[in-house]
Amino acid sequence: MHLTIEYAGDIMHKKTDKQAMRAVDLLSNTIGKSEYQRLVAELRLDLLKMEYDIHQSRSSMVVVIAGNDLVGCSEVLNLLHGWMDPRYLDVHAFAAPTDDESARPLFWRYWRVLAPRGRINIFVRSWVAQSIVRRMQGDLSSRGFSNVIRHICNFEQALVDDGTLLVKLWLHLPKSELEKRLKAAEKNPKKSWRVHPEDRQIYENYDRSRKIVRRILRDTSTENAPWQVVDSTDSRHRDLTVAHRLRTAMAARLAASTVTPGIAVAERQVVSSPPEKTFLDKIDLSRIQTKQAYGRKLFKRQRALNRLTHRAYEKGVSSVLVFEGWDAAGKGGVIRRLTAAMDATIYRVIPVAAPTPDELARHYLWRFWREIPRDGRVVIFDRSWYGRVLVERVEGLAAENEWQRAYKEINDFEAQLCEHGIVVMKFWIQIDSDTQLRRFKEREKTPFKQHKITVEDFRNRKRWQDYEIAANEMIHRTNSGNAPWHLIAGNDKRWARTAILKALCRNLNRAVAG
Amino acid sequence: MHLTIEYAGDIMHKKTDKQAMRAVDLLSNTIGKSEYQRLVAELRLDLLKMEYDIHQSRSSMVVVIAGNDLVGCSEVLNLLHGWMDPRYLDVHAFAAPTDDESARPLFWRYWRVLAPRGRINIFVRSWVAQSIVRRMQGDLSSRGFSNVIRHICNFEQALVDDGTLLVKLWLHLPKSELEKRLKAAEKNPKKSWRVHPEDRQIYENYDRSRKIVRRILRDTSTENAPWQVVDSTDSRHRDLTVAHRLRTAMAARLAASTVTPGIAVAERQVVSSPPEKTFLDKIDLSRIQTKQAYGRKLFKRQRALNRLTHRAYEKGVSSVLVFEGWDAAGKGGVIRRLTAAMDATIYRVIPVAAPTPDELARHYLWRFWREIPRDGRVVIFDRSWYGRVLVERVEGLAAENEWQRAYKEINDFEAQLCEHGIVVMKFWIQIDSDTQLRRFKEREKTPFKQHKITVEDFRNRKRWQDYEIAANEMIHRTNSGNAPWHLIAGNDKRWARTAILKALCRNLNRAVAG
Repeated sequence: MHLTIEYAGDIMHKKTDKQAMRAVDLLSNTIGKSEYQRLVAELRLDLLKMEYDIHQSRSSMVVVIAGNDLVGCSEVLNLLHGWMDPRYLDVHAFAAPTDDESARPLFWRYWRVLAPRGRINIFVRSWVAQSIVRRMQGDLSSRGFSNVIRHICNFEQALVDDGTLLVKLWLHLPKSELEKRLKAAEKNPKKSWRVHPEDRQIYENYDRSRKIVRRILRDTSTENAPWQVVDSTDSRHRDLTVAHRLRTAMAARLAASTVTPGIAVAERQVVSSPPEKTFLDKIDLSRIQTKQAYGRKLFKRQRALNRLTHRAYEKGVSSVLVFEGWDAAGKGGVIRRLTAAMDATIYRVIPVAAPTPDELARHYLWRFWREIPRDGRVVIFDRSWYGRVLVERVEGLAAENEWQRAYKEINDFEAQLCEHGIVVMKFWIQIDSDTQLRRFKEREKTPFKQHKITVEDFRNRKRWQDYEIAANEMIHRTNSGNAPWHLIAGNDKRWARTAILKALCRNLNRAVAG
Repeated sequence: MHLTIEYAGDIMHKKTDKQAMRAVDLLSNTIGKSEYQRLVAELRLDLLKMEYDIHQSRSSMVVVIAGNDLVGCSEVLNLLHGWMDPRYLDVHAFAAPTDDESARPLFWRYWRVLAPRGRINIFVRSWVAQSIVRRMQGDLSSRGFSNVIRHICNFEQALVDDGTLLVKLWLHLPKSELEKRLKAAEKNPKKSWRVHPEDRQIYENYDRSRKIVRRILRDTSTENAPWQVVDSTDSRHRDLTVAHRLRTAMAARLAASTVTPGIAVAERQVVSSPPEKTFLDKIDLSRIQTKQAYGRKLFKRQRALNRLTHRAYEKGVSSVLVFEGWDAAGKGGVIRRLTAAMDATIYRVIPVAAPTPDELARHYLWRFWREIPRDGRVVIFDRSWYGRVLVERVEGLAAENEWQRAYKEINDFEAQLCEHGIVVMKFWIQIDSDTQLRRFKEREKTPFKQHKITVEDFRNRKRWQDYEIAANEMIHRTNSGNAPWHLIAGNDKRWARTAILKALCRNLNRAVAG
């Protein structure tokens, strides 16, 4: 196992499954055909059974197959299709980003394809390979590379925290072996198709890439998501190792699956002492806008917004606007004032209600990632991912460790949007309890507003204080420099509307000025 | 209603809802504010109620809002968001195709976003506007334009046949009014944001576009999907007309919704006399490939396939391969021989099983449209849309009128793929009943093949003759010049594999040679 040690020794030493390693060591690096077939018969039956168990138990599983053996990655993939039931496998193989993909943050394309629980996601090459290539080509600065590594860790951690079994396999080909294959292909064109078109490039950049590969394998090997390096020189040895590692990982997960991850293992985080109700209390709810000034300002700012969104469209600057606040705070009314000033092909409003079964079958951020706009567009979220730390927290729909870790997940999510150049603005519209009650009663009286009000709305009022605490903590912990919270006084709807339009225009103006 | 008659007189005359027309005529073309508000209060309440009924009854609904009044399209969209419950509205507004979209047939982008039953799809500008623009810019030949019109009719008919309520509204602005708006915007910059950036262009090309618009409105106005032209000069009049038309259409649908469309109204088509079992009978099942020749040919053709798929990738030529045939015909084995020769980033295998709830909630072709590869890729369907006229027909899962019309729908679907330059190949692998039984029994004995066999498989054998008739009719009615059926003898697996590889390589070679 020379190369394993040479390449990623420290990782293997610290972090890999010792049992699996021992089993691999027992296998010699080259394996005879008959021995191979004997071992395969048993392994594939196990894999198949476990695949059904994963499906039956609606477990979430992600397999990453990457490495510098590109042909090997394809072969392993084909192998898994042959050995397991392909109906429950979802393969995601990405080439260079398409323009739809480049127009969004790096991880958009990975998030959006995630299959629901009960299916096995297989990512070939994936986010790691792409990052290595980009760094090699100089598309990523040293700092950019560090950022990407951080996002990889956060992405993988989010999956693991969500209960996903994550298995990452790196198929490693030593330089000498790669050289041998290239030479064989040159001599004998009949062998050339077992060489990948990019292999020559990998060979020529072998030494230069070594440092980058080592760094990324080390830094993205975490306790729950370690890289397992597999020697790819001998294909039979490689196949057996891969199958063996998968079997070990799946068996461990299935054995432990009586414990629902996330809920049972409630790791209570130490947080800064709960913030007082300072944020919401500080909002001056007495602010009003006279009817006359309102008409004038609304018109002026809608016109400006129209101009700015067209310019942002031309410049490829997209925006994500989040609206949160009490029921009847006037979110819908504000949103309609914004959309009235925009072209229908530019904006999209996403009203966020209770998740569908399809959404529940994935990480809670999945449904929001999918809606991230391409360059130049505006997406308006009427309620958002903050539901995790508001309604889901207060109503007990998320376990404490789930909503506790959500702050970090959300901050990372928004940081990725900002790094891509997206304008992220978050509005909390504040009203007092009396105003809410008055508006509820008005709604009951207006026929076309009755659908907005249910008994539940009145019931929720009893939780006012809990929501206050949750909202304050949310603002405290997710108020970042690039994606700040805008706290808006909403007792006077006219005030709220003009204030939001003003803030939005100012930010957009800054973003398109550059 | 001068312009209606000028613009699309014959359509309106023949096909529009007379009651709606009368109501619109009762409203004068300009409406006072108080009168407007009185009418609106009633209309929006009705719309809201009916929206809930549509949602409750899981009805399918598509609204198209197009026209030469671009600002009007946005305003109407905002209006519907204000008047109805936005939680059940899905707005799809498309600009010029992205590269992901251009890399696939025209209708891919519309099919893929279709919301499930119970939600209202609103397409702004949509396929019609895009076709007009392309024809104006000379991107579409006269023949290409006719093709597009045919596909539009087929697409809309497929939706209607599937039980979708389709409402198409064309917001028309006379040239004089457009001129007035442009002049007002020039004089007073404050009014300029009520003019769309493309309005100048529309104005300058007004006369030239008239013929194209008239043609497309006429030719895509069918009995079940007529265009309703709305005068957009006065916005209040326009809003009321739109709301009124929607209300009329939804009311009619909801009143009729006790009758399930499609199943109850079984319009038996007159088909050519049922084909005899000629196609399948003609396949010479005695063909065999010796083991030695097989090894040699397999290697040679896999190598060729590898080279050809790489070249097709570079040239942007994509392929859609369909595998159908009896259970145990060897589809999986063939597919593995193909994928073994391809790079994992190039191909994708789609195993087609019973539809999920998400898929059942839409037209049956939706799930296949979604998988259409972008330029350069290969998608392999292990079973396909032909399930509609095979298993669904034989097992009674589709009503007769449903599978009868499927031939036409499938032919149009594949024609669109071919027109886009996609290589479409369909393989039917034929075995005889004895061979199937033998293979079933072998599967039972092999541990890792047991999952492939269920009691149902044995049960299905009783329907052999029904499937034979269905398969023959399928081949007869969907064997087109560009997307022909390849009938493959499968009693000898080696023969089938090399024969398919040969046919595939030949076709690919032709496609990338040009």
